[in-house]
Amino acid sequence: MTIPYKIYLDEKEIPKQWYNVRADMKNKPAPLLNPATKEPMKKEELEAVFCSELVAQELNETDAYIDIPTEIRDFYKMYRPSPVVRAYCLEKALGTPAHIYYKFEGNNTSGSHKLNSAIAQAYYAKKQGLTGVTTETGAGQWGTALSMACAYFGLDCKVYMVKVSYEQKPFRREVMRTYGASVTPSPSMDTEIGRKINEEFPGTTGSLGCAISEAVEKAVSTPGYRYVLGSVLSQVLLHQTVIGLEAKTALEKYGVKPDVIIGCAGGGSNLGGLVSPFVGEMLRGENEYEIIAVEPASCPSLTRGKYIYDFCDTGKVCPLAKMYTLGSGYIPAPNHAGGLRYHGMSSILSQLYDDKYIKAVTAKQTDVFEAAQYFAKTEGILPAPESSHAIKVAIDEAKKCIETGEEKNILFGLTGTGYFDMVAYQKFNDGEMENYIPTDEEIAASLAQCPKV
Amino acid sequence: MTIPYKIYLDEKEIPKQWYNVRADMKNKPAPLLNPATKEPMKKEELEAVFCSELVAQELNETDAYIDIPTEIRDFYKMYRPSPVVRAYCLEKALGTPAHIYYKFEGNNTSGSHKLNSAIAQAYYAKKQGLTGVTTETGAGQWGTALSMACAYFGLDCKVYMVKVSYEQKPFRREVMRTYGASVTPSPSMDTEIGRKINEEFPGTTGSLGCAISEAVEKAVSTPGYRYVLGSVLSQVLLHQTVIGLEAKTALEKYGVKPDVIIGCAGGGSNLGGLVSPFVGEMLRGENEYEIIAVEPASCPSLTRGKYIYDFCDTGKVCPLAKMYTLGSGYIPAPNHAGGLRYHGMSSILSQLYDDKYIKAVTAKQTDVFEAAQYFAKTEGILPAPESSHAIKVAIDEAKKCIETGEEKNILFGLTGTGYFDMVAYQKFNDGEMENYIPTDEEIAASLAQCPKV
Repeated sequence: MTIPYKIYLDEKEIPKQWYNVRADMKNKPAPLLNPATKEPMKKEELEAVFCSELVAQELNETDAYIDIPTEIRDFYKMYRPSPVVRAYCLEKALGTPAHIYYKFEGNNTSGSHKLNSAIAQAYYAKKQGLTGVTTETGAGQWGTALSMACAYFGLDCKVYMVKVSYEQKPFRREVMRTYGASVTPSPSMDTEIGRKINEEFPGTTGSLGCAISEAVEKAVSTPGYRYVLGSVLSQVLLHQTVIGLEAKTALEKYGVKPDVIIGCAGGGSNLGGLVSPFVGEMLRGENEYEIIAVEPASCPSLTRGKYIYDFCDTGKVCPLAKMYTLGSGYIPAPNHAGGLRYHGMSSILSQLYDDKYIKAVTAKQTDVFEAAQYFAKTEGILPAPESSHAIKVAIDEAKKCIETGEEKNILFGLTGTGYFDMVAYQKFNDGEMENYIPTDEEIAASLAQCPKV
Repeated sequence: MTIPYKIYLDEKEIPKQWYNVRADMKNKPAPLLNPATKEPMKKEELEAVFCSELVAQELNETDAYIDIPTEIRDFYKMYRPSPVVRAYCLEKALGTPAHIYYKFEGNNTSGSHKLNSAIAQAYYAKKQGLTGVTTETGAGQWGTALSMACAYFGLDCKVYMVKVSYEQKPFRREVMRTYGASVTPSPSMDTEIGRKINEEFPGTTGSLGCAISEAVEKAVSTPGYRYVLGSVLSQVLLHQTVIGLEAKTALEKYGVKPDVIIGCAGGGSNLGGLVSPFVGEMLRGENEYEIIAVEPASCPSLTRGKYIYDFCDTGKVCPLAKMYTLGSGYIPAPNHAGGLRYHGMSSILSQLYDDKYIKAVTAKQTDVFEAAQYFAKTEGILPAPESSHAIKVAIDEAKKCIETGEEKNILFGLTGTGYFDMVAYQKFNDGEMENYIPTDEEIAASLAQCPKV
């Protein structure tokens, strides 16, 4: 059977249910804790911050499948199913016997997979009768996705954008404004926590952790508002499983079983969404896969962090989560893969990593952009810097197959496009891109500030 | 039969032949003339500027179908077939009984339909053993497309970019550089004609016409180089017929016959590509369609120009073409739809318009952006300003159906995305966008400079 360049599923094959990998995990992810009492967060406590239905999803560890409401599936139909692409041209250019596939989530205006969860979260907010939501954004992909989702359902949208990205990506801001959102650089002087961070760290370029604190503060202090988050949380990974479910169905149609599955890892939403259905098979003892998380060398939470309870945000206003973390005070060097500049990692992925279902590696920024440019020239798509971490390692794996002669099936997540990352590409084109790798001392100092649980 | 949101054809259904509408035209487009002799350009004369195979296509008025080489079809498979989208959400938001469809050409890194011809032209240049090509670009879509195509085939690529776009779209330049192209703002001091235009019109923001002159001069003065063009020429319209052929096949699968077909018109490549197969049916007396070209009010060549012989470029180095023109000296006001800032119009479309197979209307820039934003919020895709001209008129037509109750099938060309047009969107978001409409005197003065043939 000839495999086409792009495997498109039918609209009817958009998943009708999300897959909740926690139901199949023997070792469940540790619960979120109240930072004051160190007791597991109660439903009512979480509902002060998050929409009720999303809290229910966050706490649901037993139902393996959760129905996707029709309204969300209808929105999905505007840009899903996304294709699984066979990278014939890349294979040819490399001269590898490996078969390379990527699940491409960039063909929508948000430019990434983030829209999958944004539309779900906006739907539940609207259904609950809220008037608006707040959030943070790093690279701007999540903020854009949420702006689109809120415009569709007629909700207000207030976005705190990590300052370094806000400055490097003015056009992202305009996309969000075009969809009617308000966008504030973080740390801002809008919130108590923002003012505090600005005072303590003058000139800081911000981080996802800071921006989360500000967005949460704004949400809980504004009537009719809740806070929504684009990664890390289990509900987000749940929504993102449409990626993995579609990828699995598409490959099965052609009798292809991936040997290696690769995804970039920031907070974990893309990686978790891509690999969950495959990990589910591993957990149920049905199949084996090699799963690789790729982190930036500048922000290596899985590979160099500790698996402990920590704050989800720099401002310490959020619940404690047990996760691989570099410490909530860790502010990574200005790295252009804004979406990967998070100090921690999804609790689900942290547990799966700790249980050895997932491996992790790091990639240096200049190597990542070299892979990105090579991919652009051969496969035609200019990738997001985040996604390019997965490209780098997919190419490495394909090169290994040249030596071994193995016809491995490599699947990676191409989470998005780099159209709003041209400042970073310009630095790379001009030979001015630098690598930053934290010292052990830096990481130890940051970890020393983690709460005792 | 339920029509899906997106109609995707199979890869095998990518057209195997381009459709050459001239074969079915009783009144053929007038031939290109040598500006010195006023005689029809000979094959050998054209081959000094263009690739041989492309010259053959340019002069071919008899073969209705021309084979698409396998190498080009293989490249098409990386991003084609492009979907025909049923705009269910837009219909619902408008409350129209009309059925709105759009052929979406924006799902590739060039961001537009331009790649369809770029890859063909790069292929023929490579096949001829050339080392490089030169071209001009307005909005930057054509330049990006050509950069991608040249990277794929390993050709040098030199792009003259209209200065106003070069300044408004620095990131477009970086995309081209990432693909290995060199990009120069036009008018430049690189060429004789560039220096002359800079001297005559100090501070000019340039135009497609200027940039063409520079690119042609550079091509004919550099060994192993030829010039390639992204619009206007009959060969380009030929390549772009993949748009219309795919659209027709997709709609026929669901028994849908479009009543109205709408496209934006700059040089005519998108419009010509979209409508050619439908016009072919009209020419052969098989079917009737209402076809509408939408021009910017700032550059109204069909609606306010004259059908006469004129230079294709401001510098008067190109052959003369009979076309609807505002005069080759017409430099439109800085208008953000850079891709529509051309003084003339494809000879094929000019003849079809003169023979009343096509209608034309104009749209004001602020109305266009209002339609663009409305479309973005309802259909999720942030459209290019060029494409938004078609959206504006599609919405107008759909609104008429509310009054008449007609269930018209409206098809329009969504040629591309607006991700690199955020300076323009920002002006619109800030309420600072202006409209510019030339006076009759301005147009008459410019037309007075046309050559006497």
